[in-house]
Amino acid sequence: MYTDTVAGNGGDFIIQGDVCWSAGPHTLEIKPDSFLVCKGGKSAGVFEQLPQQYANLPLSCYRGRLVIPGLVDLHTHAPQFVYRGLGMDMELLDWLTSHAFPEEVKYHDLAYAGKAYHFFVEHLKHGPNTRILVYATIHVPATLLLMNMLEESGLVSMVGKINMDRNCPDGLREESAAASLSATREWLEAYAARQDRYVNTKPILTPRFIPSCSDDLLRGLGAMRHELKLPVQSHLSENRKEVEWVRKLYPASEGYGAVYREFDLLGSAPPQEAAPTVMAHCVWSDEREINLLAERRVFAAHCPQSNANLASGIAPVRRLLNAGVPVGLGSDVAGGTNCSIFRAMSDAIQVSKLRRTVLNVDEKPLSLEESFYLGTAGGGAFFGKAGMGYSGSFEPGADFDALVINDNTLAAPFNLSIRDRLEQAINIYDNHHIEAKYVRGRLIS
Amino acid sequence: MYTDTVAGNGGDFIIQGDVCWSAGPHTLEIKPDSFLVCKGGKSAGVFEQLPQQYANLPLSCYRGRLVIPGLVDLHTHAPQFVYRGLGMDMELLDWLTSHAFPEEVKYHDLAYAGKAYHFFVEHLKHGPNTRILVYATIHVPATLLLMNMLEESGLVSMVGKINMDRNCPDGLREESAAASLSATREWLEAYAARQDRYVNTKPILTPRFIPSCSDDLLRGLGAMRHELKLPVQSHLSENRKEVEWVRKLYPASEGYGAVYREFDLLGSAPPQEAAPTVMAHCVWSDEREINLLAERRVFAAHCPQSNANLASGIAPVRRLLNAGVPVGLGSDVAGGTNCSIFRAMSDAIQVSKLRRTVLNVDEKPLSLEESFYLGTAGGGAFFGKAGMGYSGSFEPGADFDALVINDNTLAAPFNLSIRDRLEQAINIYDNHHIEAKYVRGRLIS
Repeated sequence: MYTDTVAGNGGDFIIQGDVCWSAGPHTLEIKPDSFLVCKGGKSAGVFEQLPQQYANLPLSCYRGRLVIPGLVDLHTHAPQFVYRGLGMDMELLDWLTSHAFPEEVKYHDLAYAGKAYHFFVEHLKHGPNTRILVYATIHVPATLLLMNMLEESGLVSMVGKINMDRNCPDGLREESAAASLSATREWLEAYAARQDRYVNTKPILTPRFIPSCSDDLLRGLGAMRHELKLPVQSHLSENRKEVEWVRKLYPASEGYGAVYREFDLLGSAPPQEAAPTVMAHCVWSDEREINLLAERRVFAAHCPQSNANLASGIAPVRRLLNAGVPVGLGSDVAGGTNCSIFRAMSDAIQVSKLRRTVLNVDEKPLSLEESFYLGTAGGGAFFGKAGMGYSGSFEPGADFDALVINDNTLAAPFNLSIRDRLEQAINIYDNHHIEAKYVRGRLIS
Repeated sequence: MYTDTVAGNGGDFIIQGDVCWSAGPHTLEIKPDSFLVCKGGKSAGVFEQLPQQYANLPLSCYRGRLVIPGLVDLHTHAPQFVYRGLGMDMELLDWLTSHAFPEEVKYHDLAYAGKAYHFFVEHLKHGPNTRILVYATIHVPATLLLMNMLEESGLVSMVGKINMDRNCPDGLREESAAASLSATREWLEAYAARQDRYVNTKPILTPRFIPSCSDDLLRGLGAMRHELKLPVQSHLSENRKEVEWVRKLYPASEGYGAVYREFDLLGSAPPQEAAPTVMAHCVWSDEREINLLAERRVFAAHCPQSNANLASGIAPVRRLLNAGVPVGLGSDVAGGTNCSIFRAMSDAIQVSKLRRTVLNVDEKPLSLEESFYLGTAGGGAFFGKAGMGYSGSFEPGADFDALVINDNTLAAPFNLSIRDRLEQAINIYDNHHIEAKYVRGRLIS
């Protein structure tokens, strides 16, 4: 069902600038005033001297600009964008009831969905993220509309029609597990019927979280992911009260993550090869749950701003990394107020230091190199595993997702190293500093 | 020496818009489509119907815009602005040594200082803060230059020439207590000699912090503040290692705050009436220190972003407020990366929730109303006590510091209440949303 199409047809070209990317969690590759070559929507490498074979390709000159990979958002909610920054003095479950759920009900109205999703997609086009994992709502037409709009934008995305059939308000609660599953098939068939239209957009199965999905629904989704080779996204161990709720619902289970596992919605272990799973948050995951994630090769989407805003806590990112869990970053709008993964990188470093100080735990805080890696190659690997080409790197073969940052506007009375300029981009720039944005070799803004 | 001159001579006028301000820590005053009257640089009140007596005043129409008091920054470092966002994966004392101190040495060069301070002042002019407490460096000419540039900008500020004569690198360590004190007198006399030029700018005594000032220097500054009726700013209980350092330096003292008290640099208790003192951070202040601050009517400048960035911790703001300590907000650039007190308001709420969750303490998080109060009237009161007129309110008699926020650019598919628009301003707006900025009745940007 999913072939790795290369998008954009931007043709082959070269951009010249101060190029910087992650060669790994601890290593920045820095190539001052170099040539980044795009062939067929993928990187053909970075060269200090332009090889003869590329001499005739068109060149965009961004000398003196910072050129880095596009950022990857592994967790966001499209219908929450329009009220981001509201209800920020509440905790998760209250906020869901007072803000998230009442808004999502409106998306049965396609006209309303069109207006609201337009604001979301336009904002993303002008931000630093080039690929995103998105939650829509339970509504099939609105979810397809969002997929069309994202495809139109040139961004790379996986979009999920939410499943929820219990513990949620009327208007958002699907009638039954069967109704939820058949709506999901209807959505996937509508997508498949027009798949030629979708080069950069794919569906991802999206049970909202354990408390909102019945056993039959979870079981049905577990079967569907294997039948259709679909990736899965959901929420895991975000907030103490929520974890306690799951424990009450499944007293016999080993924990929150184990419940997903029991319904076969939690990654896969060798020799089995399923499409990948990503779990958002993992703030309260204990050692056993962390090991389960590592063993099942489940990605964790770390959402530092949302976890602070909703008083969820500070995720044990160092422990996740040490255990070998693949980690990326998420904005979690509107638990997070800011769509930019630059902000998530900045916050991830900040809360890792706060965690050590406030909890007095002996965990090394995240370095600039690590945080940059998580928000680029770390998250970009998920797209690779889902058959959409990996991003977040300029190694030959990586999808050509690139940002050109104009930091000349940020005058300083001294010269900054490229690493320093990257650190300032992460900590203080806004969308106005983005001079150009390429996705899969196509200039989209 | 210090008279309360009204600045700006913007004449008398009216602005019309959706007006909102803090009537107290728990109360927002909200006046849709109302008239805010400026007379002689001060507010004459807010009116739903324009009184006849003002009918002939010029009116600026900002209908549909949000009109709020200017924000107040009680703690920032001017020479750190140009490298904000750098070294953010370090802790306080390492960061001081690697970033803060080496940069400050350069300010003996007036040409360099002029270039660097120009970036700082221009940035502030276009941000939401209308009054600031600023640390300069030890250098008299550069400190006077900064005061001139701030006066020119139209912002209201108190600026401090830093005192430090021990435990700091060559080039920043003043030769002796006597040398530091006489440089301070030289600075104050130069200011006084040209005082007619300074309508919005005043000096504030600024011992950097206890570890960098000898006993003789602290004693001399304690005497000078009374002789010249000067306000004082310094740092208190910011970081665990720093608190430990002070304990080693003054083993006989009751604590960090008590050391300032012993040198008579810590506010005043009735019947004594000294100019006010503000202490930045107070992250590790225990109950005894908090009570000392309350008893001496010392202002606390809460700097949530910096305290997280430098791994200092989360200040016990609820305890400070409960004890009756007057609290305002600080950006603490460059420990904080962002000059905007909107960001400080947002972070103050966020870390107050995080503190409760992560430390599991039973302290009510800050509400939107409280955080807005701290960043406006809370900090504005310090300027009132220092004889510069108070701000942060539109009650008749308050200095006319006002921001006009254009949030029409932030389209949403529904109507927001004025309180919601204020919350979004705090959480997601940037300087591009500021349509007009008045300080003491004068339009400065």
